[in-house]
Amino acid sequence: MTTSDLVQQIQNKKSFLCIGLDVDIDKIPKHLLDEEDPIFAFNKSIIDATHHLAVAYKPNTAFYEAYGLKGWKALEKTIQYLNTNHPDIFTIADAKRGDIGNTSTMYAKAFFEDLGFDSVTVAPYMGKDSVEPFLAFTDKHTILLALTSNKGAFDFQTKMVEGTEVYKTVLETSKTWVNSKNLMYVVGATKAKFLADIRKIVPDSFLLVPGVGAQGGSLSEVCNYGMTKDIGLLINSSRGIIYASSETNFAEAAAAEAVKLQQQMEAILNAR
Amino acid sequence: MTTSDLVQQIQNKKSFLCIGLDVDIDKIPKHLLDEEDPIFAFNKSIIDATHHLAVAYKPNTAFYEAYGLKGWKALEKTIQYLNTNHPDIFTIADAKRGDIGNTSTMYAKAFFEDLGFDSVTVAPYMGKDSVEPFLAFTDKHTILLALTSNKGAFDFQTKMVEGTEVYKTVLETSKTWVNSKNLMYVVGATKAKFLADIRKIVPDSFLLVPGVGAQGGSLSEVCNYGMTKDIGLLINSSRGIIYASSETNFAEAAAAEAVKLQQQMEAILNAR
Repeated sequence: MTTSDLVQQIQNKKSFLCIGLDVDIDKIPKHLLDEEDPIFAFNKSIIDATHHLAVAYKPNTAFYEAYGLKGWKALEKTIQYLNTNHPDIFTIADAKRGDIGNTSTMYAKAFFEDLGFDSVTVAPYMGKDSVEPFLAFTDKHTILLALTSNKGAFDFQTKMVEGTEVYKTVLETSKTWVNSKNLMYVVGATKAKFLADIRKIVPDSFLLVPGVGAQGGSLSEVCNYGMTKDIGLLINSSRGIIYASSETNFAEAAAAEAVKLQQQMEAILNAR
Repeated sequence: MTTSDLVQQIQNKKSFLCIGLDVDIDKIPKHLLDEEDPIFAFNKSIIDATHHLAVAYKPNTAFYEAYGLKGWKALEKTIQYLNTNHPDIFTIADAKRGDIGNTSTMYAKAFFEDLGFDSVTVAPYMGKDSVEPFLAFTDKHTILLALTSNKGAFDFQTKMVEGTEVYKTVLETSKTWVNSKNLMYVVGATKAKFLADIRKIVPDSFLLVPGVGAQGGSLSEVCNYGMTKDIGLLINSSRGIIYASSETNFAEAAAAEAVKLQQQMEAILNAR
């Protein structure tokens, strides 16, 4: 999927919402545990109820790997369901991978070819030759961790390197990599005020912004500091939407939470 | 497995060799492709031929994920085979994971509980609250990326932060985390001369050292700068051992390469 396809979808749906499919078997409604594949059954219901409100879905791979083969199978079925029924929706494997060259190529194959995701999140610590193998898939997007939403972001990411913060060095350096135009970046909503500076370095890139909702980030602040002429933002909410209810009405409850965010987004888009 | 169990094993086998099980289906002997599970069949043969020479095995998860469900199943069978037949051997999931707190807990469960590895490699970029969930498994080891073997290590890891390199800041900071005594660190063999400085910060920690062989690192240099009284080193070789031959004698050829490294290690241990 091209960036302009994504922008078009945002304009059509009046939404730049990404829904995080972080499925914890201990948190899903009990009646689903009788299903053959409870995780997929949960995801399918969430997708069916929210696909008109969201432009992207983001399963975090940790939640699938924790259940071993069954979990990986549920991930496979989820991405297949999305690609078959909603090929217009942008899909993100939130995997935070990264390794030396040939190994990163194997990860890229796993997420881009085998599973068929549009994008994958990647950690920058190992540098250029750990990220370029993902960028070599020129019809896909690589989403690089820049400034994350958690407290630990202040341990290394905001430390000063030769007069500039580590995360800014990551942003600047990544722009020199081959096919860097296909990079997007993770910036936590809890760091909204940093977005003004970030936009000086990557004025047009799409940012994947987790941390609205459960983690305390503000949608209006993020938009205020981070929105571009082509929107340039994917705002992720996971727990706030998918665990809105643990009863049989969970999908409707998720849709109700998603509508709230979509309507705030529509208001922001209309006010531009 | 405790660190002293590992040290005991090193002394018994006169070896601190770790064999990387980075299985690329395009590189394994063709006759194995007729097996029901070619990747596991390959690993089993390699393990059977080398288990007396190696103290650790390290499957890199990328190579399994690239083959989807079949790959994950081969990984599961490999770790089960090791845990059943060689419970004394240290097992490393080379996964380079790391995410916000609750998500890292899911990764830790995947590798420590579901698969049953003794350790997992973790990336430091997201800081303390992304690593401590792994360290919370107090009977397991968390192996933090410090200074990696690839060229990209010079992009961010060696940059100066407030007067000290990023990777040294990672080492120093990690020592303050809860249960940090169960940390090990990845330091590439291609950066052997950095080990003298690294040992000033983590004098006793075990280091997992990839990059001997195919990547050009020197065993004797690594030992010269990095060895402790309890050895403190796991030297990894992957391609140099497992792809020593692509014929039916591949396991014997792998053992022959492993013996060469083990004998060099024995000589180094005897010369102490």
